[in-house]
Amino acid sequence: MDPYARLSLNTATTKRLTLIEAVRATQRHGLSHIGLWRDRVAEHGLTQSVGLLLESGLTVTSLCRGGFLTAADPAGQQAALDDNRAAIIEAATLGTSELIMVVGGLPDGDKDLVAARERVAERIAELAPFAAEHGVRLVLEPLHPMYAADRAVISTLGQALDLAAPHPASSVGVVVDTFHVWWDPDLAGQVDRAGREGRIASYQVCDFNLPIAADPLLSRGMMGDGVIDFASISRYVAAAGYTGPVEVEIFNAEIWAADADEVLTTMKQRWLDLVWPSLAGAAG
Amino acid sequence: MDPYARLSLNTATTKRLTLIEAVRATQRHGLSHIGLWRDRVAEHGLTQSVGLLLESGLTVTSLCRGGFLTAADPAGQQAALDDNRAAIIEAATLGTSELIMVVGGLPDGDKDLVAARERVAERIAELAPFAAEHGVRLVLEPLHPMYAADRAVISTLGQALDLAAPHPASSVGVVVDTFHVWWDPDLAGQVDRAGREGRIASYQVCDFNLPIAADPLLSRGMMGDGVIDFASISRYVAAAGYTGPVEVEIFNAEIWAADADEVLTTMKQRWLDLVWPSLAGAAG
Repeated sequence: MDPYARLSLNTATTKRLTLIEAVRATQRHGLSHIGLWRDRVAEHGLTQSVGLLLESGLTVTSLCRGGFLTAADPAGQQAALDDNRAAIIEAATLGTSELIMVVGGLPDGDKDLVAARERVAERIAELAPFAAEHGVRLVLEPLHPMYAADRAVISTLGQALDLAAPHPASSVGVVVDTFHVWWDPDLAGQVDRAGREGRIASYQVCDFNLPIAADPLLSRGMMGDGVIDFASISRYVAAAGYTGPVEVEIFNAEIWAADADEVLTTMKQRWLDLVWPSLAGAAG
Repeated sequence: MDPYARLSLNTATTKRLTLIEAVRATQRHGLSHIGLWRDRVAEHGLTQSVGLLLESGLTVTSLCRGGFLTAADPAGQQAALDDNRAAIIEAATLGTSELIMVVGGLPDGDKDLVAARERVAERIAELAPFAAEHGVRLVLEPLHPMYAADRAVISTLGQALDLAAPHPASSVGVVVDTFHVWWDPDLAGQVDRAGREGRIASYQVCDFNLPIAADPLLSRGMMGDGVIDFASISRYVAAAGYTGPVEVEIFNAEIWAADADEVLTTMKQRWLDLVWPSLAGAAG
């Protein structure tokens, strides 16, 4: 089997590239999957993007991102629903069933995490039927707890699975992103649970760099550059039955400044050394 | 009741002060409790510190810190046991039963979190009987997951309670430190569990400041300056039956640079506004 058959370039890793440049780089490096961000799609135009992707033959593995569901005011809630319905339609149009959801942090001046989490559950319930109608899955992303106040009030895989539980697995799933979940003492158990419940919609890999970057959002690193044990986590994910694509999604100022071909070459090598053996071994 | 009767100054909050200066500041502001760090005690001398504290009439609420138990090599493990036995004796000598344990991160170049956590369990088992003989409790501190690789592989209160479970509650407890646990979706449940299991040995308060400080260890803030909902967490802790002292422990470069009397004045006001009403209300 082609060891790169499941490797997907998330376009956040090559942030400076336009959509067309990212598509060409993905093809040039012999990959068959790509994960998209909405801003680059919007820049190229949705219809033109669909044409480009069809012509390329690449499979779109996910669209980033929906979410930001924590507004406490009716106008903010309506705006979030509108934007997420638009994202669902974009995902379906682009031919991916997986819409990654970064659910948002606390509204300004608000410290009530419990209530914010309840509002996320309410918004997910409002969006799930619309997503299902369009053949799209809302993919809840637990974010590292250092972002609980300002990016996403979903902080653990277990919490994401609890939020998904009231909905069919085909319309609400979860993503296992190594950067966000590597520290979780309950990780093996919750990945297993996610598999049993049929909820693993995506597996995203990148490292957790230390020291934490001055902008903590940019502390994601190339696999092998940080502290994460990719062998163990990949083994959990494979043992849980996940056989889908694996995205490399890195926000990192140095990687963004580097030559994209060098980044993809390194990415493929690290994948081969650190991720693929455990995925393939556990599956085989 | 004196609203400050349970408030304890942890000397880390006034890092520039010597032990004698911190003791005098605590007295000057009418507080009756103080939490100590080993470095300031060592500087003053253990016997002299005992004399100073006896003369002051202050109650020592905890000693910081033991821990750093994750070494994989026999020499490192022996050194950790020796240092922790010394810390246990220091705690007993200073008249506090609570030795706060920051258990340590991954050894250099090691990425196996699961094995590091198992070694912590082994070292705790080796130290608990010695602690019990000296009337000291090993107080396991879950640290925020952003420190899981480099400071403490205990990342949640639930995990700390699982590690404590094989041992008597009188010899292994846990500390609830708002900075480290505020984000936990299972916090209410685990604080309740900690109370039922008789394991709450300390409650420490400080805020989680955003943006995260350039040195993330210094992102602790004065209560009210960050994102934490002290009312809810204090209510959980009171409802769990905790009636002991509450330490304010802040690592923050601006607070360290400020006048200590101003810091203590602000600390008392924030305590009165943000922490004490929920502790008192739930207990009453």
